[in-house]
Amino acid sequence: MNQDRNEQPTQLDTPYLRLDKAQFLHNVLRLRQRMESHGVALRPHLKTVRSVEATHYVLPEKHSPATVSTLKEAEVLAASGYREFIYAVGITASKLPRIQSLLLGGVDIAVILDSVEQAKLVAAFCQKSGCVIPALIELDCDGHRGGIRSDSLLLVEIAHILQRGGAEFRGVLTHAGESYFCQSEQELAAAAKQEVACARRAAKMLADNRIECRVVSVGSTPTAFSGEEYDGITEVRAGVYCFFDLVMAKVGVCEPSDIALSVVTSVIGHNVEKGWLIVDAGWMALSSDPGLSSADEKDSFGLVSDVNGNLVEGLRVSQLNQEHGIIEHEKGQFDLSLLPVGTQLRILPNHACATASMHQTYHVVDVDNSTETWQRIQGW
Amino acid sequence: MNQDRNEQPTQLDTPYLRLDKAQFLHNVLRLRQRMESHGVALRPHLKTVRSVEATHYVLPEKHSPATVSTLKEAEVLAASGYREFIYAVGITASKLPRIQSLLLGGVDIAVILDSVEQAKLVAAFCQKSGCVIPALIELDCDGHRGGIRSDSLLLVEIAHILQRGGAEFRGVLTHAGESYFCQSEQELAAAAKQEVACARRAAKMLADNRIECRVVSVGSTPTAFSGEEYDGITEVRAGVYCFFDLVMAKVGVCEPSDIALSVVTSVIGHNVEKGWLIVDAGWMALSSDPGLSSADEKDSFGLVSDVNGNLVEGLRVSQLNQEHGIIEHEKGQFDLSLLPVGTQLRILPNHACATASMHQTYHVVDVDNSTETWQRIQGW
Repeated sequence: MNQDRNEQPTQLDTPYLRLDKAQFLHNVLRLRQRMESHGVALRPHLKTVRSVEATHYVLPEKHSPATVSTLKEAEVLAASGYREFIYAVGITASKLPRIQSLLLGGVDIAVILDSVEQAKLVAAFCQKSGCVIPALIELDCDGHRGGIRSDSLLLVEIAHILQRGGAEFRGVLTHAGESYFCQSEQELAAAAKQEVACARRAAKMLADNRIECRVVSVGSTPTAFSGEEYDGITEVRAGVYCFFDLVMAKVGVCEPSDIALSVVTSVIGHNVEKGWLIVDAGWMALSSDPGLSSADEKDSFGLVSDVNGNLVEGLRVSQLNQEHGIIEHEKGQFDLSLLPVGTQLRILPNHACATASMHQTYHVVDVDNSTETWQRIQGW
Repeated sequence: MNQDRNEQPTQLDTPYLRLDKAQFLHNVLRLRQRMESHGVALRPHLKTVRSVEATHYVLPEKHSPATVSTLKEAEVLAASGYREFIYAVGITASKLPRIQSLLLGGVDIAVILDSVEQAKLVAAFCQKSGCVIPALIELDCDGHRGGIRSDSLLLVEIAHILQRGGAEFRGVLTHAGESYFCQSEQELAAAAKQEVACARRAAKMLADNRIECRVVSVGSTPTAFSGEEYDGITEVRAGVYCFFDLVMAKVGVCEPSDIALSVVTSVIGHNVEKGWLIVDAGWMALSSDPGLSSADEKDSFGLVSDVNGNLVEGLRVSQLNQEHGIIEHEKGQFDLSLLPVGTQLRILPNHACATASMHQTYHVVDVDNSTETWQRIQGW
């Protein structure tokens, strides 16, 4: 870990990505304790943090289960001693040699798939290579993206293809992607129940066909905070809870004050006529992620706090160019002279995964103002 | 230059950023020749390519003028021998020491500003340090973002503040940011005229007050292809013309076939019920840039071509998650079995600057299928 206790974050050139370490640790602990109290394992999705240093805090041990969205994440984390992954993006034949290398290196990594076609590809690879690739079937619990319905006999067919081919059929996995659009506690609770019910139904159907699911995996940050009953579920996955963001605040699983991540920016100009504050954080620092704004709302690419983290009511990032952001007040004109050129502000992200992805490093600030620089894993 | 003529791009793991070298060189030459025929200098904006290797082709010589959007670009390019920059984002005091270091290293780099406040900051720094910082005043030619109106006496006031403080007042600069929304050749021609007229008016007003503008700088890719008359203009700036993208095709300054940049992706699944093709290029590979889609159009995050670069009519990227893209056909259902899991496709970017910014490297493919890897400059 690259520690530099003399470097003050206010001396860094803007824009930069700031991580409040205490808040990050608080967030990590909050979900860990919730899952412990429910007696179900947590398998954090590391696509949010994408950092070895951050992973040291997110995963309790080197053998703790983790989820990744790229093989690069698994490879870099494996080189740091982590041993237990699900690669949670549908597998293709071209990526199997890298899976094999990881397995040969003593890393447990499972792939996911949702078609006979993919099962045949994996089985053929296992047969040819002698490599026993663990595979999970992705279930569709809410029509969000991909996956197989939990009552489809395809599940049995795919499990058989994998087993016959010398792969390891390990279980089922689902993700309540639609839970990001929940608007009440009732909807969240229902999404969590539906996710669990879907996984359980698939596992039962497979068991009825004498196929064991060692892993029955569910999860998303909204449902991970909303589920109450996990019988038959072996693990819960979630990622963005480590940092939280404005989308999660809108969904209702955190407050804006729980957001550990921000982009520190400087005022670089004023458009007095239009009441615009111009800052040096454009989409290059924030991403263009629109968050969850509905059609009747104005665009917002982030809310604004002062350099100490106090939300400045009424301000929002209304437009982005590559290296320019425009901040407006909901009431139109405001006293721009209160925020002269050079003033530093923090932008709270719509989507922490997307904002963090625009940066190579985290500038991590602890409660005593000591800082560390954490590297983000880059690429695929 | 990292050349590897054995590496075939089809063997790379997807997603990756592919640059068609011949098309890139064609695009670079096209604007260079246009500006040469108009007798005005071209100052390419390197924020698009952000790569030393690409810059070798974009700039004819090490002393050729260039525009940058971050000091990091200037620093990395200066280390490769490039010598002549405008940092085209409003300057703040905290960035002046890095400007000074570049100047002391024999690099010519000018800053831009659009307020008395900033002029005083620059003047104070010059007075204290003895460093003569060249500065341009940013003009507002179309109400796009920042800048001072070309008829404002503030221009004279700011030039005097700079000169008295020991800075070098070097001229004026404007950017027709609204030209991205032009919908006809007439509108483009008008935007180009307005940009030139604005800069010329400001230069004349300053000259009338015995202040010389050594630099009178205009530019944007749409106006750079639309202007016909550059009297009194010393240079034209443009960036995205090097790659082109779907926004520029919509604006009308290129065809989709002129786009040199694409993201190569693999089909990783099908949602047969919904008629969705699922690919391994999400916003992490494409960015979330929405392009120029109007309210009555469906969202599109890119168009789709086959692996040989032939546009597949009717397909568009309709939704993005972190590592997943969803491709739909404009007619709804289509024969997904024609594109089985593992099929490679290319996604043409809405906004080349944004899509390229999601990657660390370009996989550059020449007409003989030889490839090179070019590094992108990262961070600020």
